[in-house]
Amino acid sequence: MKNISMTAAQIAEIVKGEIIGDAARSVTGVAGIKEASADQLSFVGSRKYADLLGDSKAGIVLICADLVKIEKPESTLIVCKNVDAAFATVVAMYADVPPVFEIGIHPSAVVSPEAKIGANVSINANAVIEAGAEIGDNTVIGAGCYIGHDAKVGADSIIYPNVTIMFRCIVGRKAIIHPGVVIGGDGFGFVPGPQGLIKVPQTGIVQIDDDVEIGANTTIDRARFGRTWIKSNVKIDNQVMIAHNVVIGESSIIVAQAGIAGSAELGRGVILAAKAGVNGHITLGDGVQVAGTSGVLRSVPAGQTVVGAPAESQREFMARVALPGRFEKLSKKFAALQQEVEELKAKLAEE
Amino acid sequence: MKNISMTAAQIAEIVKGEIIGDAARSVTGVAGIKEASADQLSFVGSRKYADLLGDSKAGIVLICADLVKIEKPESTLIVCKNVDAAFATVVAMYADVPPVFEIGIHPSAVVSPEAKIGANVSINANAVIEAGAEIGDNTVIGAGCYIGHDAKVGADSIIYPNVTIMFRCIVGRKAIIHPGVVIGGDGFGFVPGPQGLIKVPQTGIVQIDDDVEIGANTTIDRARFGRTWIKSNVKIDNQVMIAHNVVIGESSIIVAQAGIAGSAELGRGVILAAKAGVNGHITLGDGVQVAGTSGVLRSVPAGQTVVGAPAESQREFMARVALPGRFEKLSKKFAALQQEVEELKAKLAEE
Amino acid sequence: MKNISMTAAQIAEIVKGEIIGDAARSVTGVAGIKEASADQLSFVGSRKYADLLGDSKAGIVLICADLVKIEKPESTLIVCKNVDAAFATVVAMYADVPPVFEIGIHPSAVVSPEAKIGANVSINANAVIEAGAEIGDNTVIGAGCYIGHDAKVGADSIIYPNVTIMFRCIVGRKAIIHPGVVIGGDGFGFVPGPQGLIKVPQTGIVQIDDDVEIGANTTIDRARFGRTWIKSNVKIDNQVMIAHNVVIGESSIIVAQAGIAGSAELGRGVILAAKAGVNGHITLGDGVQVAGTSGVLRSVPAGQTVVGAPAESQREFMARVALPGRFEKLSKKFAALQQEVEELKAKLAEE
Repeated sequence: MKNISMTAAQIAEIVKGEIIGDAARSVTGVAGIKEASADQLSFVGSRKYADLLGDSKAGIVLICADLVKIEKPESTLIVCKNVDAAFATVVAMYADVPPVFEIGIHPSAVVSPEAKIGANVSINANAVIEAGAEIGDNTVIGAGCYIGHDAKVGADSIIYPNVTIMFRCIVGRKAIIHPGVVIGGDGFGFVPGPQGLIKVPQTGIVQIDDDVEIGANTTIDRARFGRTWIKSNVKIDNQVMIAHNVVIGESSIIVAQAGIAGSAELGRGVILAAKAGVNGHITLGDGVQVAGTSGVLRSVPAGQTVVGAPAESQREFMARVALPGRFEKLSKKFAALQQEVEELKAKLAEE
Repeated sequence: MKNISMTAAQIAEIVKGEIIGDAARSVTGVAGIKEASADQLSFVGSRKYADLLGDSKAGIVLICADLVKIEKPESTLIVCKNVDAAFATVVAMYADVPPVFEIGIHPSAVVSPEAKIGANVSINANAVIEAGAEIGDNTVIGAGCYIGHDAKVGADSIIYPNVTIMFRCIVGRKAIIHPGVVIGGDGFGFVPGPQGLIKVPQTGIVQIDDDVEIGANTTIDRARFGRTWIKSNVKIDNQVMIAHNVVIGESSIIVAQAGIAGSAELGRGVILAAKAGVNGHITLGDGVQVAGTSGVLRSVPAGQTVVGAPAESQREFMARVALPGRFEKLSKKFAALQQEVEELKAKLAEE
Repeated sequence: MKNISMTAAQIAEIVKGEIIGDAARSVTGVAGIKEASADQLSFVGSRKYADLLGDSKAGIVLICADLVKIEKPESTLIVCKNVDAAFATVVAMYADVPPVFEIGIHPSAVVSPEAKIGANVSINANAVIEAGAEIGDNTVIGAGCYIGHDAKVGADSIIYPNVTIMFRCIVGRKAIIHPGVVIGGDGFGFVPGPQGLIKVPQTGIVQIDDDVEIGANTTIDRARFGRTWIKSNVKIDNQVMIAHNVVIGESSIIVAQAGIAGSAELGRGVILAAKAGVNGHITLGDGVQVAGTSGVLRSVPAGQTVVGAPAESQREFMARVALPGRFEKLSKKFAALQQEVEELKAKLAEE
């Protein structure tokens, strides 16, 4: 972290916040609310972490308006409209500059003379670029990466080390691809044959549009035919599995270890939380949200949130979760009613 | 895609289908039913996609017998017994030839003089092959692959880039292994010791028989002793985890993100759908099918299908899924009965 | 496996076990109880595998005290206090020595002159080590590994092939890291912006303390700020996903395909079974155990075991599992009660 001293006054001006306490208080770094010391800045963005604010030793704390009533004279508080964004701004000021990858082709890289390399490209040690591949201007190809025959990576992208992009696949501009990602392995398709399973040829490609980020060790399979298509501004976390012929709409967010089966289609702004699974050949409309660990079996209309395996509405899921408790109550009421009926029977027999 | 023009008559002859409409209609490519244009062929293999057929602009559509009643004069239909297989045949005719990997050892590859390399082998850029390793005839070792000491890869196999096969592991003939696969990492075993966890040595190997395909970033651990054993014709999708000493029977299918814990044994023709988990030390009989996201805790006899976590029969699972609705009904009926009993009590009191 | 002949007497002395049968019986190897032949040793550590013992052809079998009553004159039995540990001891005696990686820097490796390499280090073929990186004494860096700028790997560690450790991340002493692991990819964080999602800079590191083992293709993301922190003696299986700013306490065990969301904090000795998921920003106390495939939404106090998605106590989970059966019973009893009420009504009407 950079060692810069900043006062609460300076920071409040940058994040457009309002100071409660000593405006001259200064910090030299940032940290989480539990770990921050008296010379560090931290943040609390929600009332539910009010206790953490109370216990914190941080010199300056960015807080949301909900927390202004908390007395904390030993720290300077800065009230922000959007605490997350404000903290990100301060973090960025203290952040070390990430390493710069040297422009040029490292002598150990193996670049086909039939590949087309743009201007200001950095191709790092032991990377392999096959014939017909194209690398856009200003793009970094990390150490140990493999860019297959006729594959394309757009301009201004960073492909981190040990990424594999197979033949003919297309990655757009401003991509960020983390280590271990595999783009363009074969889709998974077999038909039963007389002597075992017969492979269905996977002849399509993967097409990834602009401004897409892909997390470490994620895999995106090539289409059976045509393309597996990740549209622009989609953000994919680590260890996500995207099968052949899947389409993911603009600005969708796919969290870690989620999986999408073959030919499923996701609209714009869909969010799959961690470990969610989506069945093949179904459609999730624009803005659909899927809770973590859910398994979505059927298509979901735009705007809905689903949860569970098989996935259902939140209301249905909550009812399911509450079922054991309600069952116990009903059982007790049933036993009481049985007793009443017994009493009635006895009474009737008496008469 | 190859640009070949074919008529419905020619295609119908190849796929042994029956033409409905203009036999002279021609196409120059293939596409999905939603995307296909008037000069492309597509397919609809099930009645449930009848609407997609109605809306399609495809020039020629391969259909199943269930769909013959649909009127679609603007397209030529070809009725096929097995639409999937027929479409795969046409796709293969239009498919671009995949890139060919040059025979020989790339100068940047590091091949031990004590490794044994077969005839017509292609060892690509920056691959590393250790002492004692053996590579069978006609096999491709992709760029950046690592083949450990005394490991063996059979003839006619393709190992895509950046695959790791650790020491002494054995891969059979006609294997297809996608990028990022790791074969022969240590099994996961520890025993509590006086000063923390003590590693149990993992001294066995992974043995993979002939005709096995393994998807990107899948991991198969070496045995604690003996072997982790993938039998012939098994097909494994991406990001599957197979633990130490697991045995998988012939022609089984393991779909993406499934996991099999240590020493579990799967019979022939088992299917694990996506994200399914199988407990350690249990047995799944021949032909067992496990639904996606299920967690199988106990052994399952041959031929059964299980679903859920913990996995149970389909009938039991459906009953569980239906439970909230049935509970609501019972609750209402219970309230009504309570009312009746109240009325009886009142009546009896009157008398 | 080494071909050493040992007698039951010799083995019993080593494992401190008690012989039942022929002490002169000898074996030349080890195998699983189902596969072992007359010249091999095997083990049965629990009464539930008694049948396997009965059917086994193994020459010598290590057994637990629970099994002493089983008559098996064709094998020599050795009764052990801790069968697992005893078997591990024998396995280790028969285990082939793993390959030795030559000390020195392979000529194909690309090591920055600004990296700091310790004594007796083995840097293998095509590994890449960037400026400012530090490799401790006696450590092995496998073929194709990438060690980023200013990253540190401690002494006496083994980093297997094709591992990626990104800039500034820190790995402790005696680490074992299996192939395909990615340490220090960016954490996953975005905020909605006017023209799509805006990346939140991930400026922290990953810090891994001593004696940690990490399974193949696991990913551990760098912190948004500060560190993602894996404390000493933690053991992580394959394909585990650990998000930014997670903290994992000493001697915790994270089994395959588990995932931990951002800023979650795990205490000492926590066990996450396979495929378990842990929500972000929650705390699992010391010794918490999470069953396989569970999804933990809320913090869990020390010492508790949770199961299910959303995770609950074992008692609650068992009640949930039992619900369909109990519902059927209640439904029947309800129908009977309805009948009784009908009869009462009829009787009352008669009067």
